[in-house]
Amino acid sequence: MSLLEKTVLSIGELDRKAMAEARARQDILTKPAGSLGVLEELAIRVAGITGESRPAIGDKVILTMAGDHGVVDEGVSAFPAEVTVQMLGNFVNGGAAINVLARHVGARVVVADLGVAAPISLEGVIDRKVRPGAGNIARGPAMSLDEARAALEAGIEIANREIDRGARLIGTGDMGIGNTTPSSAILAVFSGLPAEKAVGRGTGIDDPGWKRKVDAINRAIEVNRPDPRDGLDVLAKVGGLEIGGLAGSILAAAARRVPVLIDGFISGAAALVAYRIQPRSRGFMIASHQSVEPGHRVMLSLLGLEPLLKMNLRLGEGTGAALAMSLVDAALKIQSEMATFEEAGVSNKD
Amino acid sequence: MSLLEKTVLSIGELDRKAMAEARARQDILTKPAGSLGVLEELAIRVAGITGESRPAIGDKVILTMAGDHGVVDEGVSAFPAEVTVQMLGNFVNGGAAINVLARHVGARVVVADLGVAAPISLEGVIDRKVRPGAGNIARGPAMSLDEARAALEAGIEIANREIDRGARLIGTGDMGIGNTTPSSAILAVFSGLPAEKAVGRGTGIDDPGWKRKVDAINRAIEVNRPDPRDGLDVLAKVGGLEIGGLAGSILAAAARRVPVLIDGFISGAAALVAYRIQPRSRGFMIASHQSVEPGHRVMLSLLGLEPLLKMNLRLGEGTGAALAMSLVDAALKIQSEMATFEEAGVSNKD
Repeated sequence: MSLLEKTVLSIGELDRKAMAEARARQDILTKPAGSLGVLEELAIRVAGITGESRPAIGDKVILTMAGDHGVVDEGVSAFPAEVTVQMLGNFVNGGAAINVLARHVGARVVVADLGVAAPISLEGVIDRKVRPGAGNIARGPAMSLDEARAALEAGIEIANREIDRGARLIGTGDMGIGNTTPSSAILAVFSGLPAEKAVGRGTGIDDPGWKRKVDAINRAIEVNRPDPRDGLDVLAKVGGLEIGGLAGSILAAAARRVPVLIDGFISGAAALVAYRIQPRSRGFMIASHQSVEPGHRVMLSLLGLEPLLKMNLRLGEGTGAALAMSLVDAALKIQSEMATFEEAGVSNKD
Repeated sequence: MSLLEKTVLSIGELDRKAMAEARARQDILTKPAGSLGVLEELAIRVAGITGESRPAIGDKVILTMAGDHGVVDEGVSAFPAEVTVQMLGNFVNGGAAINVLARHVGARVVVADLGVAAPISLEGVIDRKVRPGAGNIARGPAMSLDEARAALEAGIEIANREIDRGARLIGTGDMGIGNTTPSSAILAVFSGLPAEKAVGRGTGIDDPGWKRKVDAINRAIEVNRPDPRDGLDVLAKVGGLEIGGLAGSILAAAARRVPVLIDGFISGAAALVAYRIQPRSRGFMIASHQSVEPGHRVMLSLLGLEPLLKMNLRLGEGTGAALAMSLVDAALKIQSEMATFEEAGVSNKD
């Protein structure tokens, strides 16, 4: 059995018993029952994910996966393609937004090259390059089915290694100039939405750029005819290598019962792929935020996830996931550290 | 000149020059301009508040102020009045939600008795009791004008002391069984809304309790006839002692140019009082979250503030303010720690 099959098969259900115990504890803590709203729901869901009614706080890791996209030839991005490589250097030197926010919440950033076009030799970047850049989806597939499988398995291995080292909360992140285009294509395929509804401004294209993006996505779907029932097929035909890696890491987190914070629009596309491959994976995902990309709201509703934050972010890298890690930790500390009515000698509701 | 007058007079405008410098720096950091959304706006606003384009991160303090309310005699709360005192013990022992969340974000909790009904002798509670509990507003004023002034000045002194000690970010918090009733009354007076629209479920009353609450507020306004143009008059007639203390601490933070995170519904009522006393104070307020209380949204729109979080909280104590402190720190770290395009050798947008 392949690593992918093995991982997908070992994804289980949320632990209802641990969730009931977690809820029962919430109701005896010194606060009106339910008064911490989303923090209470978060603690209960993490209990279901981990199977512990008072989940311990462990290491936090952001997996930032990089890849390039042949579709930039169609003029779909405001930034030149060499920025993908330049930003990997910035990540390794600790100067990017994700470095700042990960340090702030006490998370490590793990950077991996899944498919950057140029050769990368940067210490601190994990080399799992499946191929140098995805194909131009407006003219053919992003990659072969074998390459899609390899990207998923690379993501699984990267996540598994971090979990083996002690990661107990994983956040997804991406870097890849042009990658809102395949993400919008994935959304259009899974949702059935016309491309115009699935396409936003990415990092900031103008009107003609937006029209080129819509046109590229329409052609991508027409040329490749991805099968919306088959996550692997969609990934291979209109996806990207970092998107495949992220989908794999989400499946691995689910299989290992580690909560995974989904970052923004590109991570959301990866989450949709993971969900289509194994619907049970959804229970292990936590939506960190709702981004400015108009399609992101649709994505989250397809996944049935409510975002923790709405901060008008549109950066990626894992920045939203990092911010949300502080909320998950807060929820777990409430669950474990607050006094009960009995312990504190406080009268409960009449 | 009284401390209150002196404080109100020294509240200035936001520093436009520091804000322009902060925005200029945001635009050269290694990210698409504007892509960190609310984090960028936050950093720019704090620059305007402090007058520093790259504001330093200093100590964080939550001011949790306590008071009792004679209006509980009307049956407006789900919890018995003795809980106010019991919770002060819980705060001092570190077992309450605010203790957990403040520890999580690295803030100190400063607990003050502004008007608890029972005598308090707990080490760690600042004694600034103006009177033992506010009067029953359904039958007369909450307090005299002199007492309202004393509550405001106590709040000013408490905040000033913390700022003198190094606090550079202040959060407001409250404890007082029954205090959503005066807060709803304050909202009704300032907004002109009928009581039914200004009243929510507080810590969880049932339908008959909700009707008693609406009735109590209607009677409070009828009996006391507060003048909506006069913040001090509204505070004295339908407010509460902890609400006055919090309004004072908000005015002090504004006067000292320290950002102040407004917690939920009760803190919002205090913010409205501060705003009516000195409209310029609003620029120094940051709305931490939007609570479940239906009137809170109206309150925030009267203040012209957008909440950072929507977590369905309805606890008070400063819990929302504490959670939001992590976001403010994140914003300031982005502003100070990220590399520029030039420093990182990354190409900017075409």
